[in-house]
Amino acid sequence: MRAGFHRTTMQDVAAEAGMSPGNLYRYFKSKDAMVAGLAERDRAELGRDFATLADADDFMATFARLGRKHFEEEPREKAILCLEIWAEATRNPSFAAIAGDFERDVVGYLTKLIGEAQRRGEVAAGNDAEAIAILIGALGDGLFVRRAVVSGFDAKREVGIIMAVIGAALKGEVLLSREQAAEASS
Amino acid sequence: MRAGFHRTTMQDVAAEAGMSPGNLYRYFKSKDAMVAGLAERDRAELGRDFATLADADDFMATFARLGRKHFEEEPREKAILCLEIWAEATRNPSFAAIAGDFERDVVGYLTKLIGEAQRRGEVAAGNDAEAIAILIGALGDGLFVRRAVVSGFDAKREVGIIMAVIGAALKGEVLLSREQAAEASS
Repeated sequence: MRAGFHRTTMQDVAAEAGMSPGNLYRYFKSKDAMVAGLAERDRAELGRDFATLADADDFMATFARLGRKHFEEEPREKAILCLEIWAEATRNPSFAAIAGDFERDVVGYLTKLIGEAQRRGEVAAGNDAEAIAILIGALGDGLFVRRAVVSGFDAKREVGIIMAVIGAALKGEVLLSREQAAEASS
Repeated sequence: MRAGFHRTTMQDVAAEAGMSPGNLYRYFKSKDAMVAGLAERDRAELGRDFATLADADDFMATFARLGRKHFEEEPREKAILCLEIWAEATRNPSFAAIAGDFERDVVGYLTKLIGEAQRRGEVAAGNDAEAIAILIGALGDGLFVRRAVVSGFDAKREVGIIMAVIGAALKGEVLLSREQAAEASS
């Protein structure tokens, strides 16, 4: 994995599998299957964490703990793997489906959880839950990029910044209504 | 470019250049040079935009206009190219230098401009300028990822959300002191 999908494709794996250059189909199939398996594992882990959030006594504290787990404690290798999958997704339909579904599921699940927490009064009711979910998704993706490409990336500091911003959105200190979001960009 | 660096490397370009499989050095060199040229072009464009911001009568309005230009009006192809460069940066030192320098320069330049705007009283003085710059960098990177991989990406809506968040940080509605950022993640 470390060498990247394409380098692995063309050199190591194809050679190891003893395939001819014109017979890559079977390999691509196994590469996709491997990535689908990794994505499935991540999705299952995220599902367990989201379930914790649904059952939490204190949504904000549980969210802060999970945020640190996902953004601060994950190894850089995972961020690198995400970059590989995203880049591959722009030219390979099965990777595109995996990456697109993952983004959609994260935003969908978070929207549902935030909406429920708003109805319980644990999260401020003023904001559009989906807008907060999109904000969390974009910040998480951006932090993965920075973790992978910025030398000397200060995880503690950068995660602190994004958690402060997400906290402000959950507390309603930043307004993220559908209307305001449209207004801000018009 | 559309097919990605590796696919281009191994198939089209190597074949076009009539190089032997063992003689990729010269090609890698030109690939790096090509990417360095693209990054230099982007950096020059960003430098011109940052200069506009330094000279602006109204920092907030000018920032909002530039944010829309960079995040909303850029074609998806540019986001795809960034993903290619980021993925390549995790395994190729010259790409790593280009991608790392770019992130560092954007955060450094924004920190300087925000600090100056704070001293002029155009941006709220309460926040750490570098923390806002890191927030803008992470949101921008995350939006590029989502633009490239989310099918049906709603640029207007998502840019509206991130511009509302950045606006709140510039207005001091979200607290992003060095201390608070450290606290939020501890």
